[in-house]
Amino acid sequence: MKIAIDAMGGDHAPEVVIQGIAQARDERPELEFLVYGDETKIRPLLADDTRMTIIDTKEKINSDDEPVRAIRSKKQASMVLAAQAVKNGEADAMISLGSTGALLAAGLFIVGRIRGIDRPGLMPTLPTTDGAGFVMLDVGANAENRASQLVQYAVMGNFYAHDLRGLAKPKVGLLNNGTEANKGDALHQETYQLLSELDDIDFIGNVESDSLLKHAADVVVTDGFTGNAALKAIEGSAKTILGLLKHAIMDNGLKAKLGGALLRNGIKEIATTFDVSSYGGAVLLGLKAPVVKAHGGADAKAVYYTVRQVEKMLEAQTVQKVVAYFDAKKQA
Amino acid sequence: MKIAIDAMGGDHAPEVVIQGIAQARDERPELEFLVYGDETKIRPLLADDTRMTIIDTKEKINSDDEPVRAIRSKKQASMVLAAQAVKNGEADAMISLGSTGALLAAGLFIVGRIRGIDRPGLMPTLPTTDGAGFVMLDVGANAENRASQLVQYAVMGNFYAHDLRGLAKPKVGLLNNGTEANKGDALHQETYQLLSELDDIDFIGNVESDSLLKHAADVVVTDGFTGNAALKAIEGSAKTILGLLKHAIMDNGLKAKLGGALLRNGIKEIATTFDVSSYGGAVLLGLKAPVVKAHGGADAKAVYYTVRQVEKMLEAQTVQKVVAYFDAKKQA
Repeated sequence: MKIAIDAMGGDHAPEVVIQGIAQARDERPELEFLVYGDETKIRPLLADDTRMTIIDTKEKINSDDEPVRAIRSKKQASMVLAAQAVKNGEADAMISLGSTGALLAAGLFIVGRIRGIDRPGLMPTLPTTDGAGFVMLDVGANAENRASQLVQYAVMGNFYAHDLRGLAKPKVGLLNNGTEANKGDALHQETYQLLSELDDIDFIGNVESDSLLKHAADVVVTDGFTGNAALKAIEGSAKTILGLLKHAIMDNGLKAKLGGALLRNGIKEIATTFDVSSYGGAVLLGLKAPVVKAHGGADAKAVYYTVRQVEKMLEAQTVQKVVAYFDAKKQA
Repeated sequence: MKIAIDAMGGDHAPEVVIQGIAQARDERPELEFLVYGDETKIRPLLADDTRMTIIDTKEKINSDDEPVRAIRSKKQASMVLAAQAVKNGEADAMISLGSTGALLAAGLFIVGRIRGIDRPGLMPTLPTTDGAGFVMLDVGANAENRASQLVQYAVMGNFYAHDLRGLAKPKVGLLNNGTEANKGDALHQETYQLLSELDDIDFIGNVESDSLLKHAADVVVTDGFTGNAALKAIEGSAKTILGLLKHAIMDNGLKAKLGGALLRNGIKEIATTFDVSSYGGAVLLGLKAPVVKAHGGADAKAVYYTVRQVEKMLEAQTVQKVVAYFDAKKQA
């Protein structure tokens, strides 16, 4: 398995990227890496370059570049070259910690869509209080979606939850503004209907955004606009409240600091529940190969788990299953 | 000022309703109440019925009633009679702790819309870490909105933030999936454009849902579907994390309980930050009179503050200002 790595994306590139993939390489003998980026920066980080090929390039996509323009004009950018390697069959998958918008454009215009998929969806794995986690898509690859696209997300998310998360029959829910069947706008009412008629998945109906962290479903289907708002609201609230808790412990004198120390195990447990780095990155589902976005602030451990996630997708042939499914649909 | 009270809605009706309005009545000599509900239950709770008129009715709206049908068929329900009192001019405003959907229907079909407002919006006041709070509308009165309706929300939210929250020039933001001007679907791009052209408000551009609790804006404008998803995601996340914190303190042995005790002040501060009961209930803005939904689980204190909120709206003539604004628009 060959994985193309954009080594120059993210806040701590290329250090954490190289550390993370080196760990995966050491543990998994079947993995090979094509590493795209500034060799003068990458080489000193690599004590051992077994199963690693560095492809030197000085160009890179910046977080404030206009995505589509950047992908088209910066033809030697590390992200663009990594995507080209996937397109040309030199690599089986790609990983980047860089701009989500640019990766989306690279996925769409270079790697390409699976036949039958109109719009790829961005799918992170999010935490639940029971520790199981769930996937949600689309969380923002699209600003607008049609009902047929949401059905495609349900099918793809279902394959992923089965293959990567080990669920025999994942529970698939539709994010809506109420649980009753007739809830939502025209888009969500139509989607509900289409999902109800789909035999291939276990559609459990509508779910609301206040029950997501309680594991309302294994796969949450949503249009990119609503999914983006729900995801950011969850992330922002969690960060804000945990920040307030930290403030309560650190800025309230010695007594509070002692209280925090005594509570350390419990607080660590909360942090562990919300630490999703072992789930890997956000997958752009609907492309001809696994294209995965690790968080810009990811550490080496998160990069390592993203590699393991990609390895599992390749092993389980998740993308091939999606391709076969939509080919069969087309012929039927 | 006469306020019509649906005394039978909510989880702890009529007890908390009567307690809350009695406190307001004792403090505010200009307030009078028309109290709709089961007199045999209400009367024993009222030691003193000064400036309170009980209108006895045994019928009430249940939380699982289909809203529009319930409003049309249960003509003697406490909520329906309260709305009728507003329509007939016997009361200046109404408060209910009952079903949001039914109150929306009662507002729309009985109290009636302001001329120039297509669709009333539901607007709660939410907390911010700096303690100031913000308002957001629509959070679910509508499953779908047009851009012109979002502009109406901006104008109405602006009047409210000025009158009730004491802001000379409230900052108005549009909830979107990115901060750049060209972000979002067609609806949000069009709304951005229209808000930019509006002289009457201080439009600060797009805001994202992960910055709402950090006081990204004083008035957050959103379509009902997205607003509902964002609101519930915030509420659900806050509840989940605070629940985990409680679990960390209570279920981790004596050491953790002691830690929790030492942290009490800090935790109380967090709880205070997130306690929005002093802001009152969610206002249905766009109706001919203040119609306010207090939380179904509200206590007497929250009911008291909802009365005070309504009193301020009446005093500031917020609804009349909205009426005048849209009348002037129409003539221009």
